[in-house]
Amino acid sequence: MKLLITGFDPFGNEIINPAWEAVKLLPGKIEGVEIIKLQVPTVFKESIDILLDGIKEHKPEVVICVGQAGGRYDISVERVAINLDDARIKDNKGNQPIDEPVYQDGENAYFTSLPIKAMVEEVKKANIPASISNTAGTFVCNHIMYGLLYHINKFSLVKRGGFIHVPFIPQQVLDKKNMPCMDLKSIARGLEASIKGIYENTEDLKISGGREF
Amino acid sequence: MKLLITGFDPFGNEIINPAWEAVKLLPGKIEGVEIIKLQVPTVFKESIDILLDGIKEHKPEVVICVGQAGGRYDISVERVAINLDDARIKDNKGNQPIDEPVYQDGENAYFTSLPIKAMVEEVKKANIPASISNTAGTFVCNHIMYGLLYHINKFSLVKRGGFIHVPFIPQQVLDKKNMPCMDLKSIARGLEASIKGIYENTEDLKISGGREF
Amino acid sequence: MKLLITGFDPFGNEIINPAWEAVKLLPGKIEGVEIIKLQVPTVFKESIDILLDGIKEHKPEVVICVGQAGGRYDISVERVAINLDDARIKDNKGNQPIDEPVYQDGENAYFTSLPIKAMVEEVKKANIPASISNTAGTFVCNHIMYGLLYHINKFSLVKRGGFIHVPFIPQQVLDKKNMPCMDLKSIARGLEASIKGIYENTEDLKISGGREF
Amino acid sequence: MKLLITGFDPFGNEIINPAWEAVKLLPGKIEGVEIIKLQVPTVFKESIDILLDGIKEHKPEVVICVGQAGGRYDISVERVAINLDDARIKDNKGNQPIDEPVYQDGENAYFTSLPIKAMVEEVKKANIPASISNTAGTFVCNHIMYGLLYHINKFSLVKRGGFIHVPFIPQQVLDKKNMPCMDLKSIARGLEASIKGIYENTEDLKISGGREF
Repeated sequence: MKLLITGFDPFGNEIINPAWEAVKLLPGKIEGVEIIKLQVPTVFKESIDILLDGIKEHKPEVVICVGQAGGRYDISVERVAINLDDARIKDNKGNQPIDEPVYQDGENAYFTSLPIKAMVEEVKKANIPASISNTAGTFVCNHIMYGLLYHINKFSLVKRGGFIHVPFIPQQVLDKKNMPCMDLKSIARGLEASIKGIYENTEDLKISGGREF
Repeated sequence: MKLLITGFDPFGNEIINPAWEAVKLLPGKIEGVEIIKLQVPTVFKESIDILLDGIKEHKPEVVICVGQAGGRYDISVERVAINLDDARIKDNKGNQPIDEPVYQDGENAYFTSLPIKAMVEEVKKANIPASISNTAGTFVCNHIMYGLLYHINKFSLVKRGGFIHVPFIPQQVLDKKNMPCMDLKSIARGLEASIKGIYENTEDLKISGGREF
Repeated sequence: MKLLITGFDPFGNEIINPAWEAVKLLPGKIEGVEIIKLQVPTVFKESIDILLDGIKEHKPEVVICVGQAGGRYDISVERVAINLDDARIKDNKGNQPIDEPVYQDGENAYFTSLPIKAMVEEVKKANIPASISNTAGTFVCNHIMYGLLYHINKFSLVKRGGFIHVPFIPQQVLDKKNMPCMDLKSIARGLEASIKGIYENTEDLKISGGREF
Repeated sequence: MKLLITGFDPFGNEIINPAWEAVKLLPGKIEGVEIIKLQVPTVFKESIDILLDGIKEHKPEVVICVGQAGGRYDISVERVAINLDDARIKDNKGNQPIDEPVYQDGENAYFTSLPIKAMVEEVKKANIPASISNTAGTFVCNHIMYGLLYHINKFSLVKRGGFIHVPFIPQQVLDKKNMPCMDLKSIARGLEASIKGIYENTEDLKISGGREF
């Protein structure tokens, strides 16, 4: 099995992106899975283009995109991407779309085809906090996840794909008060465990992973 | 204009539901809008059935469902409902669906047809904290919102519909540590302001209301 | 019984101080207690001077100082003041002392002589969240509380005195994300209930109000 | 220089105490400092007795006690201990004192004699979040810190002493929602850095480390 995993470059006021830093730490092989790494820019459209180029080049069976969720406490595996760009801040090329669809002809949302509950369980088994998230936001993270799932659903581009959000790393929160973080090695180990969860589960587990809101 | 607004009965460990309590406080008329109030049970399926009965009886042009989001800080207007039930806890009749669609023939998600940004602005103008939310969870709140939007999109049941989440009220958090709350009158005033926002805006405002995650 | 209650003027980036706003809303008489109100500046030393002048003029038996604790969730009654000024930000006259004692000849700390647990119970009975706090910080709030208790302990200036911290009010958090607040009327009602608690309890209640940290 | 460092055994609902786990990971020597480790029970009085025995046996120049602060985000170096036991929960032998002094003849509070700001700076230099705390609570952590400082101030038992609070470790928060944690190795590295800060600074730094509340 070949797996392409992407991480964004830094955005907002940050000079580092824990997503890409963690992806870089991954070994070339996890269980039976060959790992291909790709950095993508925090830019609307361009991020999807570069992802599609990478998929064309490497022909992976599975794709995971990874992004920073500064303020979240754990590794959160995203369940769904919505057909909407609504940017609170500018992306790295100055774009700031408001209430625009990612693809005019896309469905309102796509559910990930990854076994998200098996992934969460595998990460927690490694003693790393993890949970399912039901929103990837409305910025470039949701944008690339939607783009990926759009191409999977419409064109069967790859077999399975999805998105993982990771917390800040400690060096990013030294001057932020009461801000959760996770050390980089734990994030990388969490990604590794989640890949193991994908490798070992074609079907997802039938356990609760929901939230009241 | 006639508007039907629903509130859930208490669920989980709570003996009161601020959603219904606030709905009860609303006047019979807000600006030019006639207000019809309806309590719905925190029960999968049944909540939608009772909502549909209420719509058949009262023939409103607009429907808002209101639910409790214990732990949220402000009045949050939901943007989207997803076609998924995944219950962390049992509903009030003991149902606990896991990863089931709300409607087999529904789309993956529906966006609300309410002017959510105009509503948020109107609530904030009344000095009440408010924001857009991009997830209504996977419990009965998302369930009824999805059910409502499904019937609007497939059968043009009513013109516009959506969902608002409200925080705990003070008496619910007296023995919970560091738990945000909002006093009941402010919640009711917030609902009133949001209805004013609906009444005065057929089109939504083109302003940012997005989040990075 | 005559009670002097003070509130600070706005400081930091705020244009309003909920402490003083709430104090202004108090009635002139609460149960058998005559209420004298006094605004004090958020300035080291000067705040104590003006407090002492007010005490000299009005000869109250009880003094409560009230301050803003932006970020706290409830009305918190302070237990202890420490003999230390350590300012993270400048006060309203540009002073920023670092690790200096409030009074060279003062004790390391003074415990309040108010019945803090009875006060908290009374506030909660009014359905307003409240708790004991074990730190009033190291800025002007702790400074004036220490100054008050120093004069009570050394010179028996008044019979009883202490400090109450109050949260932001809603209008202060409209543009702050996930920031707790309490509406102004509830803060005022909370202060009123705490004064009732003082009036009715010479001795404090023997109930737990502690924290692990 | 010889330094005695203590960690508590687990208490409350926890089956592990990150304080003691981190202390165990420390090397026998840090810079020029010999490290002696001692587990203490989470029990009022007994904890101080065992600490005093350890001091008698090992004759250290510096003593640091370390405790768990589940819910805090960073390594927090305590500034002050107050002469008060007020237990929200029972200690490990069923004691639950309410509003009792630690020592009848002690001062209201003692300030630590450790260079807390130098310690915080050193921990942050190691890319580990840290801050000064102005309350060690009213449970056994404050109790042992007060006991230590009482014996230092009254009987010059050792030269310098103080207390450090550490967050939960990841395995403790797997089933707690939105609870901050720090991995065990980072906590141990943080303690090591803080000891370096003690070793290299007889006087504390004159920089701000205060809070408004």
